[in-house]
Amino acid sequence: MLLEQINEPKDLKHLSVNQLEQLAGEIREFLIAKLSATGGHLASNLGVVELTLALHFLYDSPKDKFIFDVGHQSYVHKILTGRMSQFDSLRQFKGLCGFVKRAESEHDVWEAGHSSTSLSAAMGMALARDLKGEDNKVVAVIGDGALTGGMALEALNHIGHEKKNLMVILNDNEMSIAPNVGALHHYLGKIRTDRHYQKAKEELNQLLNKIPAIGGKLAKTAERLKDSIKYLLVSGILFEQFGFTYFGPVDGHDINQLLDVMEQANNASGPVLVHVITVKGKGYSPAEADSYKWHGISPYKIESGQVLKAVGPPMYTEVFSDALIELAQKDKRIVAVTPAMPGGSGLTKFAKIFPDRMIDVGIAEQHAATMCAALAMEGMKPVFAVYSTFLQRAYDQVVHDICRHNANVVFAIDRAGFVGPDGETHQGVYDIAFLRHIPNMVLMMPKDENELHRMMITAFEYNEGPIAIRYPRVNALGVAIDKQSTPLQIGKWETVRDGDSAVILAIGPMLQVAEETAEQLKREGLNIRIVNARFIKPLDETMLLQLAKEGLNMIVLEEGAVQGGLGSAVLEFYSIHNKSYNGSVRLVGVPDLFIEHGSIPEQRREAGLTSERVASEIKSMLPLVRKRAHGPA
Amino acid sequence: MLLEQINEPKDLKHLSVNQLEQLAGEIREFLIAKLSATGGHLASNLGVVELTLALHFLYDSPKDKFIFDVGHQSYVHKILTGRMSQFDSLRQFKGLCGFVKRAESEHDVWEAGHSSTSLSAAMGMALARDLKGEDNKVVAVIGDGALTGGMALEALNHIGHEKKNLMVILNDNEMSIAPNVGALHHYLGKIRTDRHYQKAKEELNQLLNKIPAIGGKLAKTAERLKDSIKYLLVSGILFEQFGFTYFGPVDGHDINQLLDVMEQANNASGPVLVHVITVKGKGYSPAEADSYKWHGISPYKIESGQVLKAVGPPMYTEVFSDALIELAQKDKRIVAVTPAMPGGSGLTKFAKIFPDRMIDVGIAEQHAATMCAALAMEGMKPVFAVYSTFLQRAYDQVVHDICRHNANVVFAIDRAGFVGPDGETHQGVYDIAFLRHIPNMVLMMPKDENELHRMMITAFEYNEGPIAIRYPRVNALGVAIDKQSTPLQIGKWETVRDGDSAVILAIGPMLQVAEETAEQLKREGLNIRIVNARFIKPLDETMLLQLAKEGLNMIVLEEGAVQGGLGSAVLEFYSIHNKSYNGSVRLVGVPDLFIEHGSIPEQRREAGLTSERVASEIKSMLPLVRKRAHGPA
Repeated sequence: MLLEQINEPKDLKHLSVNQLEQLAGEIREFLIAKLSATGGHLASNLGVVELTLALHFLYDSPKDKFIFDVGHQSYVHKILTGRMSQFDSLRQFKGLCGFVKRAESEHDVWEAGHSSTSLSAAMGMALARDLKGEDNKVVAVIGDGALTGGMALEALNHIGHEKKNLMVILNDNEMSIAPNVGALHHYLGKIRTDRHYQKAKEELNQLLNKIPAIGGKLAKTAERLKDSIKYLLVSGILFEQFGFTYFGPVDGHDINQLLDVMEQANNASGPVLVHVITVKGKGYSPAEADSYKWHGISPYKIESGQVLKAVGPPMYTEVFSDALIELAQKDKRIVAVTPAMPGGSGLTKFAKIFPDRMIDVGIAEQHAATMCAALAMEGMKPVFAVYSTFLQRAYDQVVHDICRHNANVVFAIDRAGFVGPDGETHQGVYDIAFLRHIPNMVLMMPKDENELHRMMITAFEYNEGPIAIRYPRVNALGVAIDKQSTPLQIGKWETVRDGDSAVILAIGPMLQVAEETAEQLKREGLNIRIVNARFIKPLDETMLLQLAKEGLNMIVLEEGAVQGGLGSAVLEFYSIHNKSYNGSVRLVGVPDLFIEHGSIPEQRREAGLTSERVASEIKSMLPLVRKRAHGPA
Repeated sequence: MLLEQINEPKDLKHLSVNQLEQLAGEIREFLIAKLSATGGHLASNLGVVELTLALHFLYDSPKDKFIFDVGHQSYVHKILTGRMSQFDSLRQFKGLCGFVKRAESEHDVWEAGHSSTSLSAAMGMALARDLKGEDNKVVAVIGDGALTGGMALEALNHIGHEKKNLMVILNDNEMSIAPNVGALHHYLGKIRTDRHYQKAKEELNQLLNKIPAIGGKLAKTAERLKDSIKYLLVSGILFEQFGFTYFGPVDGHDINQLLDVMEQANNASGPVLVHVITVKGKGYSPAEADSYKWHGISPYKIESGQVLKAVGPPMYTEVFSDALIELAQKDKRIVAVTPAMPGGSGLTKFAKIFPDRMIDVGIAEQHAATMCAALAMEGMKPVFAVYSTFLQRAYDQVVHDICRHNANVVFAIDRAGFVGPDGETHQGVYDIAFLRHIPNMVLMMPKDENELHRMMITAFEYNEGPIAIRYPRVNALGVAIDKQSTPLQIGKWETVRDGDSAVILAIGPMLQVAEETAEQLKREGLNIRIVNARFIKPLDETMLLQLAKEGLNMIVLEEGAVQGGLGSAVLEFYSIHNKSYNGSVRLVGVPDLFIEHGSIPEQRREAGLTSERVASEIKSMLPLVRKRAHGPA
């Protein structure tokens, strides 16, 4: 095996093209075998095997900087930079990260997880290089999907203006995660598929030569025509207009061609764009056949491609999906909007039933949010289905366009809380903190799938402004959905367990942690009350005032940043309303640090969101509890 | 005067082109006269007089929807829709808003303040129209500067894909606020200035006709050539590639031409873009000569164009500007980045001295933030100079690219707190709440210009991650800057007034409110302690623990959202660390609503940030204070 001899990029340098091709095959086998056990981003990595080999063959990492957009396609890069032996721990707690990770290797120079940051990073690195008088290369690898993200287009515009030396490799596989939308996509498709472009080159040249020699005014025109024809001969005219020199399209699985074109591009000055056509899932037929499904995949059987799925109740995403279809049957105003995540957000089925009412805007969270505001203001009932972490991209639009207009937009915030193997870039732990302070916002979290269903009804019946439901990336509890579901009263919590030793306010999956805590403490003679604080905004002020009167010690338990979270809201309530709370209020939430990849239970443990921790917090308040429970000593 | 006869758009419909031209002149006179007293966005509005007249002449508002990007250029629209008599109160408290305002008129259908939202809004309105089966027109008016904002480009890409009927009017005046940057700008410039484009049309057609008739394979090629040439004949090829039909460029001050081209465009189906060339400040020579200065202007003398400026100490912006230049002389790593606000952010002088080290990225906050992360990771010391309200656009980039990388980026957050006449879309009252929960962030606010200077030194000496200074849109206090300035200790507050009746923790200009409060209460025999809580993150934990021991009643006073603000941080601290505070902690900040335009003192009053309010809050806690001050009764 060649692969075993590759410990660092320089081990590639002496290989022949044939050997590089052999190595590509070995890397594919390695990835298919390893990921069958761990899961991971298989299809994207199978697509960039030759491309990554060419990069490390031609350039000199880490002096030359490779920036992988999103970074989920960096597995081949990891293999070539000495991390082959760590793939058994891929995306696991304390194991190899599924994205680029600076702490892992000096060859990892830029981390991501969210898309469309690579061009800005490349521009920053090129600027720094020139200011420092250095001469390294900067190469960004970006997918055609990520290119439609607003910040990538902002960067494209700026790079074209500044004319710094840097290379953008457009990894064009016709997909972001879902099939791409957008005018740029059609444009790329035209370049890709229109073989006429290539033939036309020669034919047009022949034709030009046939134009009779002409003098006078027309001579100049003919000259200009020839100049102009140059444009026609360049497929990438759009990129040229943005100030890039365009190379391609080139077959991303033909190493010879790749090396040729990249070397040409390397010799050009100013920003260059190399348009590389790749096939997602290349070399593994199940993944080639359905690269959407195989973008991020669970463990699978190699031969059959059968994905091993845990059995259990439906994910919250599926509950949302079914409820949305049910409600949309009755309410024609309902429109679903997704930023390139129709599958992940549970909108695929909806789109089949209501093709005109599912709008996939591509990777474009900002545009999606503001478009929702306009839809609402024109009487529609848009639901913006988005992951908590990606809603961060639309924070300003939520403030400025949705909440300030008080528009009737429903937010379906999926992946709220920890997300498991995607790790720190994807944790949905800030949405409470960044949404709670915005005027007009209503924010809910369900305790189970039946409550999610009721919250959906609540949200679509609500006509007084924006309303959001956040739900986690876990299986629901397996409870039945009410036949005759009714909406919730806005701002009303419920007591789910009685007790008078202390009270836990909790939301979502933290209610199970609260129950475990209560069971543990019951064995020690304590009766813990549990409140489902399902409205994070507005708070249940009546209940909070009642609790203040009772003076039970209180724990506020949430799977979200403790700073600015639900607990913080409770403290603010008592302070702003000058209600002294006759007892302690203790906050248990995600501490002030980034929690890395692993399983969700491991991440909760890392953050201290366990029944042991909560029980110990309650016991540390015990003297007070006892005094209150039994009267003064 | 024709203008006096125009009370609503339909009063325009019977006018001749000559009369419309007369009206344009009258509107200019009106604007120049009115704004000389109130100030406002003069130059932008002088640029769109004919364009707005054409819109209201051709279309039928409010059935047809006009969406003004940013909305600062809607004064002419306001005049034509019955609001002429309200211009004396422009941008004043309870007066006419300087942006589009739905509450003012049914003709105002979309509000903004931040740029680049209009295309998303237009798309949402077009989608809603088609889903409802209606047939109104949707017209977005966007400047060439705003077009480079990422969300506008996202929308362009989506609109080109969906092919809905809508019209984009590109109001091309070669400016955003500052002169534009970016590849798109160069592209537009080429269209604008290259008169050859027009002549080339005819010449190329002539040439094509001279190509000898040819048969066989070349005939097809010739056909294809003709098709291709069509592209060359269309100046707006970039927009065509994005899926738009392009019309223009057209002279935006020639009503005849405008009406002609807009009518043509109106008959096309699918998305159309009309490229209108306008002159900012048209018709008022001081504004034409320096449209950058006259973008948003204070009251002025009409004849001379002399701007009436209040005298007083420098604005904080100027103090930042001078300090940055001073530091950059000594530290070559310092690079300043602005998203199209070199003037407003105080970077004009810096750019003259260090042209290579001031990077204006255009309206592109997301790209700017992430580029700063990369600059920092390559050893530079970037300062991202940005208004508080516009930093909202880069929230995700601050989380994902700057703080998660723990990159040494300095934030100079200008316009923190209330901003006066720009009103609710521009208030800088959320930055504490949206930055405080992000790991690794350090956040400061100075009490005066000397402390701003020290914070600048602190920030550029700090090498452990991101660090932000927020400062308000007001004059500094007029104190001297230390000759030998020293950095602050991170997380260390200072007591600025001693007292033992109660304590006020305050930041920035709220320290003056605290002083006023203390003076008032001194007359009533109370000694109020005042703490300059200049580090919002990290808190001064030592002092907080000391205060807890003392048990003084506490007010936390801030000009920022009370939810998730500094006060909230103080409460969290006591709760998380389980330190019971032997006294009350009361929060005084911006309540949970959007505060409209007016003067900053009026906005503070509206929000309850006054010494009267604080004094009364303290007195309401008095029984407790007395008890503590004099021992148990």
